[in-house]
Amino acid sequence: MPALPLALTQGDPAGVGTELTLRAWLERAERDLPAFAVIADIDHLALAAKRLGWTVPLHRSGWGEAAALFDTALPVIALPGGLPVEPGRPDPASATATIASIDLAVAAVRQGDAAAIVTNPIAKSVLYQAGFKHPGHTEYLAHLAAAGGAEPRPVMMLWCEDLAVVPVTIHEPLRRVPELLSTTLIVETARIVAGELRSRFGIEAPRLAISGLNPHAGENGTMGGEDQAVIVPAIEALRAEGIDARGPYPADTMFHARARAGYDAALAMYHDQALIPIKTIAFDDGVNVTLGLPFIRTSPDHGTAFDIAGKGVARPDSLCAALRLAARMAQRQSSAAA
Amino acid sequence: MPALPLALTQGDPAGVGTELTLRAWLERAERDLPAFAVIADIDHLALAAKRLGWTVPLHRSGWGEAAALFDTALPVIALPGGLPVEPGRPDPASATATIASIDLAVAAVRQGDAAAIVTNPIAKSVLYQAGFKHPGHTEYLAHLAAAGGAEPRPVMMLWCEDLAVVPVTIHEPLRRVPELLSTTLIVETARIVAGELRSRFGIEAPRLAISGLNPHAGENGTMGGEDQAVIVPAIEALRAEGIDARGPYPADTMFHARARAGYDAALAMYHDQALIPIKTIAFDDGVNVTLGLPFIRTSPDHGTAFDIAGKGVARPDSLCAALRLAARMAQRQSSAAA
Repeated sequence: MPALPLALTQGDPAGVGTELTLRAWLERAERDLPAFAVIADIDHLALAAKRLGWTVPLHRSGWGEAAALFDTALPVIALPGGLPVEPGRPDPASATATIASIDLAVAAVRQGDAAAIVTNPIAKSVLYQAGFKHPGHTEYLAHLAAAGGAEPRPVMMLWCEDLAVVPVTIHEPLRRVPELLSTTLIVETARIVAGELRSRFGIEAPRLAISGLNPHAGENGTMGGEDQAVIVPAIEALRAEGIDARGPYPADTMFHARARAGYDAALAMYHDQALIPIKTIAFDDGVNVTLGLPFIRTSPDHGTAFDIAGKGVARPDSLCAALRLAARMAQRQSSAAA
Repeated sequence: MPALPLALTQGDPAGVGTELTLRAWLERAERDLPAFAVIADIDHLALAAKRLGWTVPLHRSGWGEAAALFDTALPVIALPGGLPVEPGRPDPASATATIASIDLAVAAVRQGDAAAIVTNPIAKSVLYQAGFKHPGHTEYLAHLAAAGGAEPRPVMMLWCEDLAVVPVTIHEPLRRVPELLSTTLIVETARIVAGELRSRFGIEAPRLAISGLNPHAGENGTMGGEDQAVIVPAIEALRAEGIDARGPYPADTMFHARARAGYDAALAMYHDQALIPIKTIAFDDGVNVTLGLPFIRTSPDHGTAFDIAGKGVARPDSLCAALRLAARMAQRQSSAAA
């Protein structure tokens, strides 16, 4: 485990992030969790714990003492602007605190106070109502990472113990995918993936499996031309620069257990091609990892779940997996740097 | 088990069908296989068994005696036109026998001599060289089923114990899928699926889960319009005629174990959306089922595998699952008819 704590953001205080944070701390031993500090309003956490009937000692903490505290209390980095927020009732008045929690997490990793960032889910629509101008959580992190300079290009990876998969295009209508795919986009994405598998996952020579776009990867052009025209040149370019990229493989036969053993990460061409296999095998404990940032960031692979917030029924599996992975990546990164 | 044997076609004699047939019979007890008769050249089978060093008693049989014979010998329905065919070396001269095997299987089920058809894989390119005019195996079966009348509309279902999934469009370039999808196509496909789940799977009120086309099923039209414009009306039409169709569901969250427990079959909009989940969870023992025909037909979910044919290493899991499912469907169908 790294000596530094992880910085956990509060997410939307009306979502499940509040109770998942409390429950993760309660189950820290059996779930083998690394030390983390949550950046949140301590009164909000205390009220949530009380309503759920959970005994969670909260300790207002600074970054320096958080890791040592973690065994006996949940370290809370105080967040100004606490509000009474009811679970399941998102309130744009909480947006300032939600955003401040992210800002403080980024400041902490940049200053060397925290090992990595783990973010609880936010609701973009709630932030938009409060004037938030960024397309989403990840883009906001890239904006903060830029600190006025050039913005890094974040890459989304879905990760579980058995599979790491990266969609090259993400939230796009399926109709637009063929025109959005380009050799450059695939090459740039794969470079970032290969680089972080080396620097933050400890894989010396990462093996990337690249999917085709069409059924059977186009079957030599008889079922679509993009596999040959767009994806093959990307694989050739990657191999020319020493990256072990292979494919294009038919997407349907890439994700069973024996196939998965042959690569470290898969690149898929679009959302469902990437997310169907990982959510089929790891629905509860998949982790969302943002590659391409100057710091480590993971998050649970679910949303605010306002419909069940406050009931104590949300499963902490994905948040716990996100915490464990962030700590593991931080450790590998510091070994690599040493 | 049904009293009638299953009719197993030989498939391409240079492919793995030959050795899989022999091995399935050898492992009939531990794999709990129903009685089947293979329609093939007996000398070809005998030579293949000899080369592999397998002791398989072959018995030239008629349909009437096949089931009783099955315990002690592999019943072979003699096929005229045997040739010396080397494993892994497909020969267009074998096409006549490959096609005759299919013809005889269809004749057998139509005459009530066999309970269902299970087909070994063929290689279309080999048949084309010999003048075969049909687009594929399934289309040829539909042509035979028509017997000069209107051709039935076959529907491909992939099946394993944990999931049944039907792609609404199949071997199409991804780019063409949005334009090929229509409300009518979805409704007609779902009707055939619901009908056969009732008549041949013994499910009284089948529950169909229909996927969206776009990520998150379009998220209310913000990521593509087809989910609302094309798929929602199909679900409404199906429900209006009493079919329990639900959705459109985001495809990525439809296929994990808890989700699968909520439906009897999933309809997916395109090839990879359907085949990724089933091949991820059941790569070795998925079965291809052709719905919409006047007889039961299953087949293993793999091809001729010429590259490994004759080596005795091909896994018989899928063929065995296809045999068991065909027998189960035949039994359910006769119970339903009784």
